Amino acid sequence: MKLATLKNGRRDGQLLVVSRDLRMAVAVPDIASTMQQVLEEWQAKHRALDEVYRALNAGIATGAFVLDVAQLAAPLPRAYQWADGSAYLVHSELVRKARGAELTPELWHDPLMYQGCGDSLLGARDDVALESTDWGIDLEGEVAVFTDDVPMGVSPQQAKGHIRLIALVNDVSLRGLVPAELAKGFGFFQSKPWTAFSPVAVTPDELGDAWDGQRVHLPLTVHVNEDLLGQPNAGVDMVFDFPQLIAHAAKTRPLGAGTIVGSGTVSNGDRSVGSACLAEKRALETVRDGKPGTPFLTFGDRMTIDMFDRNGNSVFGAISQRVVEYAPPLLA
Amino acid sequence: MKLATLKNGRRDGQLLVVSRDLRMAVAVPDIASTMQQVLEEWQAKHRALDEVYRALNAGIATGAFVLDVAQLAAPLPRAYQWADGSAYLVHSELVRKARGAELTPELWHDPLMYQGCGDSLLGARDDVALESTDWGIDLEGEVAVFTDDVPMGVSPQQAKGHIRLIALVNDVSLRGLVPAELAKGFGFFQSKPWTAFSPVAVTPDELGDAWDGQRVHLPLTVHVNEDLLGQPNAGVDMVFDFPQLIAHAAKTRPLGAGTIVGSGTVSNGDRSVGSACLAEKRALETVRDGKPGTPFLTFGDRMTIDMFDRNGNSVFGAISQRVVEYAPPLLA
Repeated sequence: MKLATLKNGRRDGQLLVVSRDLRMAVAVPDIASTMQQVLEEWQAKHRALDEVYRALNAGIATGAFVLDVAQLAAPLPRAYQWADGSAYLVHSELVRKARGAELTPELWHDPLMYQGCGDSLLGARDDVALESTDWGIDLEGEVAVFTDDVPMGVSPQQAKGHIRLIALVNDVSLRGLVPAELAKGFGFFQSKPWTAFSPVAVTPDELGDAWDGQRVHLPLTVHVNEDLLGQPNAGVDMVFDFPQLIAHAAKTRPLGAGTIVGSGTVSNGDRSVGSACLAEKRALETVRDGKPGTPFLTFGDRMTIDMFDRNGNSVFGAISQRVVEYAPPLLA
Repeated sequence: MKLATLKNGRRDGQLLVVSRDLRMAVAVPDIASTMQQVLEEWQAKHRALDEVYRALNAGIATGAFVLDVAQLAAPLPRAYQWADGSAYLVHSELVRKARGAELTPELWHDPLMYQGCGDSLLGARDDVALESTDWGIDLEGEVAVFTDDVPMGVSPQQAKGHIRLIALVNDVSLRGLVPAELAKGFGFFQSKPWTAFSPVAVTPDELGDAWDGQRVHLPLTVHVNEDLLGQPNAGVDMVFDFPQLIAHAAKTRPLGAGTIVGSGTVSNGDRSVGSACLAEKRALETVRDGKPGTPFLTFGDRMTIDMFDRNGNSVFGAISQRVVEYAPPLLA
């Protein structure tokens, strides 16, 4: 099943069921009006939604219309908990190597995770407005899962059953603000501004055998403008899988329905596949040439993140966003 | 005006207007059903709510009932953004001194802030369930403000006008998990589990001249069981005021209506007033005696946080919570 949220002037938008080929959609107000509601009442709602999905794919759903991806909000336009891991340690290792540091051994046993801002998640075609290119604007291609209610203290095995939906993420990052922020010791804040999501979120079964209950075994295709930045496989080198990341997040508290848990930038030790963020490409250049050659993003640049199944079909639809200049409100 | 949220079996509860003396309340479904809705539509709703508040205080509100604080959820039971500052640098300075470290100079210019979990905020009488006392369970008495929509890039002066409500916070902290978590560099996660709020949130005008648009100039009274832990003044030694904290949080992105921004543990340089958390008391003992004498909390202990106006009346009602033992779900 594929679900999306249509912008309708309300903050949480209108829930849509989307056809497998991402061409058609149907609103289902009689079942649920918002994605948050679906995640809160998954057991009660998912069968009815799945029936609509089958009818839509069969071309017999009442009220079906042609989907315009540009009209979509993030599948969950606001999230009460957006916890982003950093599960591909080859990424952390490389970025640290470029600045002459090493990965401490405990990071192979204890996941890195930070809390992001869930109050204004972007749709797949929304512009990313930022004030200054001096901030070192970067994209990060990730995979994320959406959960229902997760009890405190669950095991990874138990956490597995709480994964209801999977989507792609663009975790926009401001690399120039990272060092000073991390040096303060409280983690990211201003350096992780906007987060955008793929047009649709899909139930795990949509991935077939590319989902093993823990990881998504497909390449993530990332472009900056027309240039392929990389297509690392999300199932390779993910040291902590999604059930482990959820169990980590839920160790000392429950996670409310509608929690989103991210994988961190997808990254493979096989460097021939390229990268899912510019920081990594620049780190490779630094290790090789002593300095980075690739610039960060500038206004007008487009970031595209997509994932294709083994038949070449886009699973989630593409995230495709421009970076645009933002002017803050004039001083009162 | 004083507002609260009644537990009613729904996740966001039922909005209540509460009388100034915290004795009576009235539900206002015709104006708004939830606190989130009020913060989203502040301009459209606040006058009607204020009329109900006046009637309630005058004893002529229809449908008024005696308030039972134990039935209250957090004023905002779930928040899309809970950003907690650490604005009382005398606290940070002391805690670092106890472990032989110094406060770096940039912290006097650039606020410390982390993102907390907003998906399951506790009511003022809710138990705090935790698995282990080995985690070093502590309370933190704080003040927090609730905002409406804050545009990206606002100045502190502009941020001032977005402060709609003020409340007290118990930012439960697991001191034993802090060092390893901060050492990883991504900030707090498991070490900041539950957050609880005072029974009511109040509009700034309720504080009279104790609110200067930036800080709350009243002592915060904190007890552990029957013992006074401290009563530091929230208006003293707050290096970054609330408008500055909001502007910091909004530097690279907007803040959605219903954002909560916290002050961090209230702490005064005048140590005769005591502390708002055990970590600080233990740090003072460490500096004086070479080791802490006061233990962290154990199951059954009660944490009480309150703030009284100059006439001795509780402004927000007391946070009063027990620490209880939690048993995680049995392994499947």
